[in-house]
Amino acid sequence: MAPHVTALDVRTMADCRPYYSPVSTTQGPVKFIYTAGQIGRDKNGVVPATYEKEVELAFQNLGDCLLAAGATPSDIVKVTYYIVNYSPKNRYHAQVLLKFMNGHRPPSTLVPVTALAVPEYHFEIEAVAAIRDLAAIPPIVKPAPGNSLSVDVVVVGAGLSGLQAAHDIQRAGFSCVVLEARDRVGGKTWSQSTKDGGVVDVGAAWINDSNQARMYALAKRFDLELIEQNTDGNCAAHVPEKEALVFRYGEVPAWGEKDVADIVRIRDGFEELCHTIDIRNPWDAKYDDVTLEDFMKKQGAGERALGTVSIWTRAMLGCEPSELSALYFLDYCKSGGGLLQMRSDQKDGGQHLRIRTGTQTFSKKIAESMVPGSVILEAPVSRIFQSRLGSAIVTTEDGTRYHARKVVVSIPTPTYKQITFQPPLPLDKLEYSSNSMLGYYAKMILLWDKPWWRKGGYCGMTQSFVGPASVTRDTSDDLNGHFSLTCFVVGQPGRDWSKLSPAGRKEAILAQLVQLFGSENEAFIRAPTEVFEQEWVKDVYSQGCPCPVTPPGIMSDVGKALREPFESIHFVGTETSFEWKGYMEGAVRSGERGAAEVIEALSKKEGKVLAKL
Amino acid sequence: MAPHVTALDVRTMADCRPYYSPVSTTQGPVKFIYTAGQIGRDKNGVVPATYEKEVELAFQNLGDCLLAAGATPSDIVKVTYYIVNYSPKNRYHAQVLLKFMNGHRPPSTLVPVTALAVPEYHFEIEAVAAIRDLAAIPPIVKPAPGNSLSVDVVVVGAGLSGLQAAHDIQRAGFSCVVLEARDRVGGKTWSQSTKDGGVVDVGAAWINDSNQARMYALAKRFDLELIEQNTDGNCAAHVPEKEALVFRYGEVPAWGEKDVADIVRIRDGFEELCHTIDIRNPWDAKYDDVTLEDFMKKQGAGERALGTVSIWTRAMLGCEPSELSALYFLDYCKSGGGLLQMRSDQKDGGQHLRIRTGTQTFSKKIAESMVPGSVILEAPVSRIFQSRLGSAIVTTEDGTRYHARKVVVSIPTPTYKQITFQPPLPLDKLEYSSNSMLGYYAKMILLWDKPWWRKGGYCGMTQSFVGPASVTRDTSDDLNGHFSLTCFVVGQPGRDWSKLSPAGRKEAILAQLVQLFGSENEAFIRAPTEVFEQEWVKDVYSQGCPCPVTPPGIMSDVGKALREPFESIHFVGTETSFEWKGYMEGAVRSGERGAAEVIEALSKKEGKVLAKL
Repeated sequence: MAPHVTALDVRTMADCRPYYSPVSTTQGPVKFIYTAGQIGRDKNGVVPATYEKEVELAFQNLGDCLLAAGATPSDIVKVTYYIVNYSPKNRYHAQVLLKFMNGHRPPSTLVPVTALAVPEYHFEIEAVAAIRDLAAIPPIVKPAPGNSLSVDVVVVGAGLSGLQAAHDIQRAGFSCVVLEARDRVGGKTWSQSTKDGGVVDVGAAWINDSNQARMYALAKRFDLELIEQNTDGNCAAHVPEKEALVFRYGEVPAWGEKDVADIVRIRDGFEELCHTIDIRNPWDAKYDDVTLEDFMKKQGAGERALGTVSIWTRAMLGCEPSELSALYFLDYCKSGGGLLQMRSDQKDGGQHLRIRTGTQTFSKKIAESMVPGSVILEAPVSRIFQSRLGSAIVTTEDGTRYHARKVVVSIPTPTYKQITFQPPLPLDKLEYSSNSMLGYYAKMILLWDKPWWRKGGYCGMTQSFVGPASVTRDTSDDLNGHFSLTCFVVGQPGRDWSKLSPAGRKEAILAQLVQLFGSENEAFIRAPTEVFEQEWVKDVYSQGCPCPVTPPGIMSDVGKALREPFESIHFVGTETSFEWKGYMEGAVRSGERGAAEVIEALSKKEGKVLAKL
Repeated sequence: MAPHVTALDVRTMADCRPYYSPVSTTQGPVKFIYTAGQIGRDKNGVVPATYEKEVELAFQNLGDCLLAAGATPSDIVKVTYYIVNYSPKNRYHAQVLLKFMNGHRPPSTLVPVTALAVPEYHFEIEAVAAIRDLAAIPPIVKPAPGNSLSVDVVVVGAGLSGLQAAHDIQRAGFSCVVLEARDRVGGKTWSQSTKDGGVVDVGAAWINDSNQARMYALAKRFDLELIEQNTDGNCAAHVPEKEALVFRYGEVPAWGEKDVADIVRIRDGFEELCHTIDIRNPWDAKYDDVTLEDFMKKQGAGERALGTVSIWTRAMLGCEPSELSALYFLDYCKSGGGLLQMRSDQKDGGQHLRIRTGTQTFSKKIAESMVPGSVILEAPVSRIFQSRLGSAIVTTEDGTRYHARKVVVSIPTPTYKQITFQPPLPLDKLEYSSNSMLGYYAKMILLWDKPWWRKGGYCGMTQSFVGPASVTRDTSDDLNGHFSLTCFVVGQPGRDWSKLSPAGRKEAILAQLVQLFGSENEAFIRAPTEVFEQEWVKDVYSQGCPCPVTPPGIMSDVGKALREPFESIHFVGTETSFEWKGYMEGAVRSGERGAAEVIEALSKKEGKVLAKL
C-alpha cells in the first residue's frame, strides 16, 4: 500500500529536485487540510526583525497549523509562497523549506507580490495537506469470543506507546487493531475525576515544551491546556528526629556545610558522568558491574548523600540504589538529558507542565483519531503464535484469534511472562525481561478547598529522608479552583507503607504532612475533601511504574535484546526508548519507532507481491 | 451517475462562458492531484523566445503533470494563472486554454503579478484536478463457476482496446469487469522475459511520440523508458540468386535504374492516392472492386515494384497483395498518416520507439490502475445474450453469468464466431466479420551477446524478396546490454516456413541471416544465446495479427457495420479505429471511442431515470 500523498517527478520535464515536485496525488480516503497564508508573526503579533527569522517563523506557524489538524509536513500536497520584494538572488525560503520538509517534495508555486496584508509582512506560505481519513475506514467489529479477525498488525497494549504505534500504522494505510487488557486506554497514564469536577493524574503527570517534542506536539495537536509546575516558594525536607529543613527550590537542604558539599559533589559528579553515556550503546560504558549504592559508596558518598541518592531512585524509579546497576541509572538519567534536567520541575525539566484535563487525554485523543472500533478493550492477550510463514495469531483470554502479519508488543517487559509466546522468546530477551524489576510506586493525592501550604510560603515540593512519601508536589489547577498535593510513596518506604491498612496509609501521609508543614497547618491538612491512592505494583497489567530497572550485569550482557524484533513481533514501550525512558515522551517515541519498523517491513512485502504480477 | 468533476454555471451571475465556470464540485471517492505552478520551460530549462510559445509550453507541462498522475485536462477542478505584465488586451492564454480544455470549463483565477520566480518567466499556471479513486472501490470478487455477478458494463477481452475502454468506463463512475480468455492481459502485446533479465516483444513493439498521442501519453503516464529505433547504418535487401543489396535506410535497394524508377513511381503514386482517402468514410472512394495486386498491375507495376508491394503487405499485415482490396490498403495506410509514415522507423513513423520494459507494460499498468479484481483472467466468453429490455448476460465457458447493461466486445472480428450471440449479430456485421481475414504473422527474435551486425555497418534493418523473413529489425536494449534482431516471418513466405519443424524454422532464419549479412558473420549468427518464436496465427484468441483485412467488395458493401453497436453491444479493437489501425495507438483510440459510446448511452439512461423521480 502506498502512502496517501505521493509527489511525482515527470521525466519529460525540467528537473525540480531537491526543492519540489511538479505534481502530487492523494490516495484513498483522506482528510484535506487547508491553511491560511502563514506569516512570520508570533503569538503576540510581533514580526521578527530580520527576513530570515520571519521566514523561519512562518514555516513554524505552518507546522503548528498542520499539527493542530493532526498532520505533519510529509502530508503536504501543495504549498504556495507569496514574497514581497522577491529577488531570485535571495531564496532563503528554499533552505528553510528543505529542513522543514525533510525529504518530502510537494509541488509549489512562488508568487512575487508587491505587498502582503500589512507592511510588516514580507513572506507568506500556505499549504494544502492530506491525511488518511481513519474515520472513513469501515469500523472494526470486535469478533465474538472464539471467532477470528484478520488484520495487517495487532498491537498488544493501549498505553501511549501502543496507541502511537497503531495510529502511525493505520495512517500509513495498514489495518491494525489494539488489544488492551484493561477497560480503558492509557496504560500508566490514568486521569481520574474528582468530586468537584476536576481531574487527578494517578499515573504519569508531566511533560515539557522544549526537549519533549513529541508530547508537546501532541498537546498542540489536541489543543490541550497546559499548567506550569509551580516552583516559586519554599521547599521542605523531612529529616529524622528534627524539624523539617526549609530550602529554596533548586538548592540542597541545609544539612550543614560538610553534608551539603558532599551531596553537591556526588550530584555534580554523577551529572557529569551520565553525560558520557551513549544512549544508543550504553553497554559500551562500564558501571554495569556494580549497584548504584556500591558505586556511590566507592565515590565516598556520606550518609546524607546516600540518602539523597535514595530519594532520586525512589522518586524516579520506585527502587532503592541497591536494587539497580549504576549503568542503568546513568543511562536512564542521560535519556532525559541528565540527572538535573530529568529531576527538574522548571523549563526543560521532566516535571514542567501538566495537562489540565489529565494526561490520559493523550491516549483518549489518539484512540479517538483512529479507525473506529480498532482499540479493543478488555481483551487480555494470552498467547502469540508465530507460524513459519511469517504471520502470527494473537489469542485473547476468551479464545478470540487475531491473525496478523506483524505484532507490536507494547507492555512492560516484566509482564511478557503473562503471555505464552510460541515459539518462545529468544533467550536474551527472556533473560532481560525476567531480570527486569519494577519498583514500588504509589501516589496519594489529597485535595483541599484551599492551597493552605502557600500561605506559609511553601511551593508544595518536599523531600523526605524518612517517608513514607519521598517527594510531594503541588498539583493544583488554580484556574478551576482545584487544589491538591501529590505524594510519591515510593521505594522501600513505600513498600513498608503499603502493608498498612487503608486508614493507616492515609494517616501516615497526613502525619508526614503535619511534620513537614507544621502543626499550625494540621487542621487544614487533616481535612482533605478527597483522597486518591494508586499503588501501581498492585495493577496486574503494569506491576509497577514508571519503568523496570535492571540489576548489575544485565544491560551489558543482554541489553541489546530489549528492542530487537523477534521474527514478526516488534517491541515498544517507554523502557525501550533511547530518550526519556520512563516518561510519556519515551513511550510515544518508542511507538513511533515500532510503527516505522513494521511499516517498512510491510511495505517491502507489498513491493514483493506487486513485483510478481 | 455523474462524472466525478462537475463545473457549474450560476444563473444569477455574469456569464463566464466559454472560458471558465464559477464553481466546480467533485463527487465520489476521488484522488486529488495538485500541480506546482507550471511555467513555459522545456526539459533543459530553456524558456521559448515568445510569450505565446511560453504560454503554450506551460500548458503542455501542465498536461504532462496531469498525465503523470493519471489525469487529463477534463479532470481539472480549478486553475490559477499568474501573469507578468498582464494586459487585458493580451489574453493569449485564453485561446490556449480553450484548446487545452476541449470543452471543459473549470473555475479559474487570474492573478497579475510583477514577477515570477526568475525574470525569464512571464506566465505560470497551476491546477487542482481529481480522478475517480478506483483503488478505493470495493474489490470485485470473481463469482464461483455457475454463479452470477451484475455490473454496468462487461468488456470482452483484456487487450489494450478492452482495457482502455474498461478504464475509461470505471473512471466515469460505472462498474465494469473485463473478461479475458487468456491467463494474461495485453492481447497482441506480449512481453516475454529473456534468460539474461531482458524482455522481448513477441507482439506489437513500437510507438512514436508525435502522431501516436495516446501511446505517448500512456508512456508518460506510466513513466516508461523509451528506446529510439536505430536507423543509422546500412540496410540489406535479400534478393533471389544474388548477393544481398546494401542500401541506406530510406532509400530503395539498388536493383538498377529502371527498376528503382518503377518502384519509386508506384510508391509515390500510392502515397499520394492514399492521402485522398477520407478515413471516416473510406467507402466513398473507389478502389474496392480490385485487389491491391491487380490495382498495382493496372498501374503498370513491374516485377520488382510488385515484389516491393508484397513486402509492404506482408510486413504490415501478414498477407499478399492478392488477398486484400486496394481500398483496404489505401485506408489502412492513410490511418497511419500514409504509407511512408506508417512504414517509417524514424521520427513520426510507426516503428520509432520501443518500451524498455516491453509493450505489455501498457496493459499491465492500465489493469493495475483499475478497480481491484475487475480484470478477470482465464474467463473465455462463450455466449452473449441480449434481452428485449436492453440488458445482456455474458456467459463464460464455466457457466458463470455476468449481467450487464452494456457489453464492449474487444476481440478481433474473425474471432466473433467463437461466441454465440443471441440474437445473432446483424447480417452486415456477420458478412464483414466472416469475410475478414487475418494474415500469417510470426516473429522470430534472436538474441546474441554482441550486436555483431553493427561492426559491418549494418543497422539491422533488412528486406527480403525471398524469405522466409520479409523484414528484420534491430530490437536491442543497448543500455542493459541485451542485443537482438527481430525477424518478421509474414505472408506466404511465412506460411511456407510455418510448415517446417521447429529446428527447420530456426535453421531457415539463420541461413537467411547468413545470406543477408555475409558468411563472415556466420559464426556469430549461428550462436544466438536465446531464440523466441511466436506464430500469432496459432494463437486461438488472436488467430493472427496485427489486423484482419478484407478482400474486394466488403468495405464498400458492409464496411460501415464494423464499428456499429448492436443494441447493447459495442465493438472496439485496433481494426475498428479510424487512425493507426493495426497499431497499439489504434487499439487505445478504439477503446476510448467504445467507452465514450457506452458512457454516453448509460448517462442518458441515468438521466431518464432521474427525470422520472
